[in-house]
Amino acid sequence: MHHEQRAQTRALLRARGIDIAVFAHPHSVTWLTGFAPPVQTGRHLFAGAPPLVLYAGGHFTLVIVDAWAELAAVFGAEADGAVVTYLGYTIEQPIDGPGELRSSLELGWLASAARRARIGIEEADVPVAVLALLTNAWEPLSAPVAIDGWLTPLRRVKTAEELAKLRENFQLADVGHAAARLAVQVGASEIDVWCAAETAVQRAAGCRVPLGNDCVVGYRENNIGGWPLDFRLRPSDSLIVDLSTIRHGYWSDSCATYVAGTPTAKQAAIYQVVAEALALGASLLRPGAVCADIDLALRRLIAGAGYPVYPHHTGHGVGVSGHEAPRIVPYNDERLAPGMVIMLEPGIYFPGETGVRLEDGFLITDDGAVLLTQHDKTF
Amino acid sequence: MHHEQRAQTRALLRARGIDIAVFAHPHSVTWLTGFAPPVQTGRHLFAGAPPLVLYAGGHFTLVIVDAWAELAAVFGAEADGAVVTYLGYTIEQPIDGPGELRSSLELGWLASAARRARIGIEEADVPVAVLALLTNAWEPLSAPVAIDGWLTPLRRVKTAEELAKLRENFQLADVGHAAARLAVQVGASEIDVWCAAETAVQRAAGCRVPLGNDCVVGYRENNIGGWPLDFRLRPSDSLIVDLSTIRHGYWSDSCATYVAGTPTAKQAAIYQVVAEALALGASLLRPGAVCADIDLALRRLIAGAGYPVYPHHTGHGVGVSGHEAPRIVPYNDERLAPGMVIMLEPGIYFPGETGVRLEDGFLITDDGAVLLTQHDKTF
Repeated sequence: MHHEQRAQTRALLRARGIDIAVFAHPHSVTWLTGFAPPVQTGRHLFAGAPPLVLYAGGHFTLVIVDAWAELAAVFGAEADGAVVTYLGYTIEQPIDGPGELRSSLELGWLASAARRARIGIEEADVPVAVLALLTNAWEPLSAPVAIDGWLTPLRRVKTAEELAKLRENFQLADVGHAAARLAVQVGASEIDVWCAAETAVQRAAGCRVPLGNDCVVGYRENNIGGWPLDFRLRPSDSLIVDLSTIRHGYWSDSCATYVAGTPTAKQAAIYQVVAEALALGASLLRPGAVCADIDLALRRLIAGAGYPVYPHHTGHGVGVSGHEAPRIVPYNDERLAPGMVIMLEPGIYFPGETGVRLEDGFLITDDGAVLLTQHDKTF
Repeated sequence: MHHEQRAQTRALLRARGIDIAVFAHPHSVTWLTGFAPPVQTGRHLFAGAPPLVLYAGGHFTLVIVDAWAELAAVFGAEADGAVVTYLGYTIEQPIDGPGELRSSLELGWLASAARRARIGIEEADVPVAVLALLTNAWEPLSAPVAIDGWLTPLRRVKTAEELAKLRENFQLADVGHAAARLAVQVGASEIDVWCAAETAVQRAAGCRVPLGNDCVVGYRENNIGGWPLDFRLRPSDSLIVDLSTIRHGYWSDSCATYVAGTPTAKQAAIYQVVAEALALGASLLRPGAVCADIDLALRRLIAGAGYPVYPHHTGHGVGVSGHEAPRIVPYNDERLAPGMVIMLEPGIYFPGETGVRLEDGFLITDDGAVLLTQHDKTF
C-alpha cells in the first residue's frame, strides 16, 4: 500500500542528499503509509508522540503506540517498510508513552541505523524529544535539514489506490447530503441537520467517520462557514451544508445550499449565478489550465452579474488533507495535470441574511475532467 | 478563567527555577487557559503548530492560529495572560502557518522577553521549530529542562470552575445513555446505537461534541472496548456502551451494558456481581483511601465470585483528559483527596460471548463521595 508514494519520496530524499528522515506531519504519515489514526477525540491518551515515519537505508518505519497495531496492518506487510509499536496502556506501572517510545527505538531502529548521516526532519511537527533521540544516537554530519512541505507537490497527482479511497469518500459525502436535504425543514436547527448527515454517513460506512466542514444558516453574521450550532431554520432560511468525510485518511468535500420551504426571489437569483459559475469552472478544467485563470474567470462571472465576489478560494485539491495543492486562487500559476482531484466552490454571500455556495469535485483526465460528486444541488 | 491553575503553575515554575516555559501538550494548554480547540477532524489545516502556552515574567500567552481567536475568548480577558494569533488562511499568498507563527512571535513575544533565562519545555510535544525560535532569540543559561508531566499532579484536585464543566459533561453523557438504551434492539448495529447517542448529546449541547469511548457487542472477540462497527445485535446479545463527552475541553465518562431483549441467566449473574463490585467501590471512596486498596477490593470481589478478573484499571481520574491521575490500579499508593473526580468501572468479560461493565463517576468530598453520573444502568 502506498508503494508509489514511498518510491517518489525515496528518490527525492536521495536527490537532495538526505540519508535519514523523520516525518511527523499527519498528512505525510498517511500519504507515506496509508495508516490513518482516529482523530475524533483528539490525540491518543497513551501515545508518546504523534505517529512517526522514520526513513533510513531506503526503508520506511512507522512508529506508533501499540493500541494502533491493528489499524497499521494496512502498512505492515510492505517490503520497503516496517511497523514498530511501543507500549501504551498498562496497569502494571505508570503509563509513560514517551519513555516507552524511547526504549523501543533505542533497542531497535536506532541501534541498527547508520551512525553518520545527513538528517532531515519535518521540524514543525517532530517533537523536541524525538529529535534529541536521533542526535544522541548519531553523529549527524550537519544540523538537521527542515523537510517540511517537501511531500506537498508530490501529493498533487493521485495514484489509482488514492483515487479509490477518494471515490469512497465522495460517495459517503453524497449520502450525507441526501440525509441533510431531508432534514432541512422549518423548525430544525443546524445541529439537527448535521446529526442527520453524520448518522447517515456513519451507518453507510459501518463505522465512525470524521466529518468536516460547515453547516451555517443564512442569518448568521458569518454565514460563509462554521460548525453547526442551535440556530433554527425559519421559512425561507438558507442553509449552507459543506461536508467532508475522512475515511482511510482521505477527504472528500462537497457543498450544497438548502432552503427551508420556498426560496426567495433573491435566493433563486443568486443560486442561478453560483450554478453558472460552477458550470463555467467545470468547463475550464483540463491539463495545462492555469489555476489563477480559472479563479479569475469565476470571480469575473460573479462580479459581472453584480454580486459581491466571495472572499475565499475558488477551489483546491483534496487528498490526505481537505485542502491541498493545487489551490485555485488568484496568485497560483500552477497548471492542472491528469490525476489531480480538484474542488470548485463559488459562492455569493449577504452576511446576516442569506448565502449560496455550491461545490463539486473533479478528477482531471487526459483531456478534461470527470465529476466525482453526485449530490443533488438543486434548490 | 483557570486563574487558580496558572497561580499553581507559576509557583511551581518559580520553585524549580524556570524563567520561561513552553507548554504544548493539549491537556496542559486547556488546563492552563480553558481554551479547547476542536479536534473532530484532526489538526487544524492551517495552523503552524499545536496551540502553545508561553510562560515568562509570571504571565501566560496562548499562541494560536487566527481561526481560533473567537474560541480563545474564554482566555482572552485574563490579567495574567494574553492571546497571540497568527495568520492561517489567506488567498493572497501561499498558506504558511509555521512561517506566520515565527514572524508573529519574533515581532512580539520573543522581542519583549528576557534575553538570558532558564527554559523549560514539554519536550514530547513542543515541535523542534518552536524550540529553535526560542533558542535563536535567547541566550539560554542551560539546555532546556523537560517539564513534561509537571502539571499532572496539580490537575488531580478540581477547581469549582472545572467541576461545573465536568458536571455539564456528565449530564451530556447521561443524555447519550438514555438514547443508547432506546436504540438497543434486535437487528440494530453498534453504529446505529452509537449514532443515536451521538445525536442526542449534540442536540442537547446545541453544538458538536467529541464522543469517546466504546460500543462493542458481546460476541466480538475483543469485547472489552473499541469503536462501533456494523456488528448487529441478535436476541440476548449484550452491548457495552462506554461514553465520554468532551465539552469545554473536559471529559465525562460512564458505562452501562445493555441487552437486546432478555438477558440470559449467565448475563444476569455477572451483572449482579459487577453491580456489587461497583457499589463496594463507591463505599470505599473517601479522603485518605489508598488507590491500590480500592483496586484490590474490587478485584477480590470478582475473583471471589468465581469470575475472571478484568485486565484493565478499576478506575481513574477525569478532567482535561479522559484518563488521568489518580489511577485506581494495583501499584498506585496515592491517596484520594477532596475535589478529585474518580471513575470506577469494574467488568466481567467472556471474550467472543458476552461481557458486562458498569461505570460511575464520583466527586470526593470531605467525608466520602457524591455520584456525578445519573444514567440508568439497570439491565
